[in-house]
Amino acid sequence: MSGTSLDGIDVAIVEINGHRVETIGFQSTPYSEEVRRAILAVSNTTTTTREISRLNFHLGELYASAVQRACRRYGPVELIGCHGQTIYHQGGANTLQIGEASVVAERTGVPVVSDFRTRDIAAGGQGAPLVPFVDCLLFRHPHRTRIALNIGGIANITVIPTGIAFDTGPGNMAIDALAREYTRRRQNFDRNGRIAARGNLNRPLLDQLLADPYYRRKPPKSAGREQYGAEFVTHLIETGLPLPDLIATATVLTAATIALAVTTSVASYAPTDLIVSGGGAHNPQILAHLAAFLPGVALATSADYGIDVDAKEAIAFAILAYQTWRRKPSNLPSATGARRPVVLGKITL
Amino acid sequence: MSGTSLDGIDVAIVEINGHRVETIGFQSTPYSEEVRRAILAVSNTTTTTREISRLNFHLGELYASAVQRACRRYGPVELIGCHGQTIYHQGGANTLQIGEASVVAERTGVPVVSDFRTRDIAAGGQGAPLVPFVDCLLFRHPHRTRIALNIGGIANITVIPTGIAFDTGPGNMAIDALAREYTRRRQNFDRNGRIAARGNLNRPLLDQLLADPYYRRKPPKSAGREQYGAEFVTHLIETGLPLPDLIATATVLTAATIALAVTTSVASYAPTDLIVSGGGAHNPQILAHLAAFLPGVALATSADYGIDVDAKEAIAFAILAYQTWRRKPSNLPSATGARRPVVLGKITL
Repeated sequence: MSGTSLDGIDVAIVEINGHRVETIGFQSTPYSEEVRRAILAVSNTTTTTREISRLNFHLGELYASAVQRACRRYGPVELIGCHGQTIYHQGGANTLQIGEASVVAERTGVPVVSDFRTRDIAAGGQGAPLVPFVDCLLFRHPHRTRIALNIGGIANITVIPTGIAFDTGPGNMAIDALAREYTRRRQNFDRNGRIAARGNLNRPLLDQLLADPYYRRKPPKSAGREQYGAEFVTHLIETGLPLPDLIATATVLTAATIALAVTTSVASYAPTDLIVSGGGAHNPQILAHLAAFLPGVALATSADYGIDVDAKEAIAFAILAYQTWRRKPSNLPSATGARRPVVLGKITL
Repeated sequence: MSGTSLDGIDVAIVEINGHRVETIGFQSTPYSEEVRRAILAVSNTTTTTREISRLNFHLGELYASAVQRACRRYGPVELIGCHGQTIYHQGGANTLQIGEASVVAERTGVPVVSDFRTRDIAAGGQGAPLVPFVDCLLFRHPHRTRIALNIGGIANITVIPTGIAFDTGPGNMAIDALAREYTRRRQNFDRNGRIAARGNLNRPLLDQLLADPYYRRKPPKSAGREQYGAEFVTHLIETGLPLPDLIATATVLTAATIALAVTTSVASYAPTDLIVSGGGAHNPQILAHLAAFLPGVALATSADYGIDVDAKEAIAFAILAYQTWRRKPSNLPSATGARRPVVLGKITL
């Protein structure tokens, strides 16, 4: 997996037996500054066809190296799922991931499933989100309604087993930006929620932020980077409040908007468990607020279910690849809006 | 198949039983002027990622429509091979074909093999030519050495069964340009070689053209559009000779350089048959000169072997798709320079 955060390449080595999924290993390989710049230079902008073609093959080499490094440590694999790097995405219309699967297959000698999003769009869907299918597969329970919550830059939930999935609002994005500001770029995030713990919640500011109509809008809905990006953070800083107070307030906002979604949009499903993954699962402040906001819901991290909170997305694309290999559909029309379940991706032998 | 000539989409419907290949039907759908312009606008030039992503999906829709139109006439198919439109190609480094296979698969309900060239490049090859594999499969004979000759814009030959393949020099490109000039754009080519038949060969000019060291260089070698394009034609016109004489001379040049390749570069294989396909197979002047230059070689067109001369390339990608579906390699390292035979393409179920 390599996400739009451009951190780099996450490799999860997974053993799948029917519905049993075991994580054998997980390894991250950061992109070099040069590669990060090259990806930004072709993303959603003016470029040359030559540069896209070159980068497609170059990323293929990087993916192959990352897989080979993980396999040297954790042993060989039989199938690779490769999400690729999204350089353009317009849900419902078209999408473009690069990172040549032929290069990955040729270097590793292992079949590759790639290009997962195009078929869902061809079937009328948004091409995203694709992870809810995996949430349902991993966390389904015969009697309980569970919610899988991923706290990345944006926070999103999947209701299990119904497969309803949407963005609840901010995840770590604003907290991270404020923590960078507070630590003068020595920290990229609020490690263990320590800064938030030192600050005080500013109730008027929280109320003002919660007034955003997004939180009361019915799903399906999705929140973009632009919603909680530079402009949002500048607005917070301009209040003149101490940064720890802003971080504390942003932390509560994340938990409160998640809780709002659980207690309003999906309350009718009577969820019993909330299973947290993503970077936010490392933040005890977010978890504590969630527990306080949702007294009737059992809180756990995906690690409690055997799924490393950081590896979950990479694990998801291993599972999606396995589905495709067995010729099984793996989009959830309830999550993507597609007309029907379809077999995702392309197979390179 | 949709080639770099940007004529449009060729659909061949083929029935394959082991090594027996039968053409059920062939249909061409020209590109609209708008699509032709859109492809040129992203080919090998500055563009936006958004436009490439859009055109990738749009071409997928056009390919799907072309296949559906052919299937309405000739009946359903079980597998589709889709070459896509090349918008960048640097042999040995990288290549980029667009025309989203997920769209073709979703619209038709038929699995698609696409993106044939990338794996050969990943294996160290030029990603081209790929048709020689099919030539060997279609025309192989237990005792005879055959040569498959395709006369498109450029002419190329495949020695069968050795699989040596290279461009011999000009095909129709210069003849076509001169015919357009002579007919003031009322004709795009010298239909049935009639203009050449009226002209006289200019021997000094032919000798001068044959002095190009390309024709004596050992294979592997490939000739580009630039070699016989606008500059070459301008040079011919500037001789001041009557256009029919130039067309007659260019026609002999095509035949002479093919014959030169057969009698020098590949003479050691003692070829017995020359099997002609491509637009040039319709030109009796070229065929007559070939027969005269190669008295010991039996001349035939691919149609004599059951392969429509215009449909051959489209038929080739049906056969290449079939190979991939059966998990069989289908590049010829002797033709592409790849380190090993590899299974080409990506499968969209």
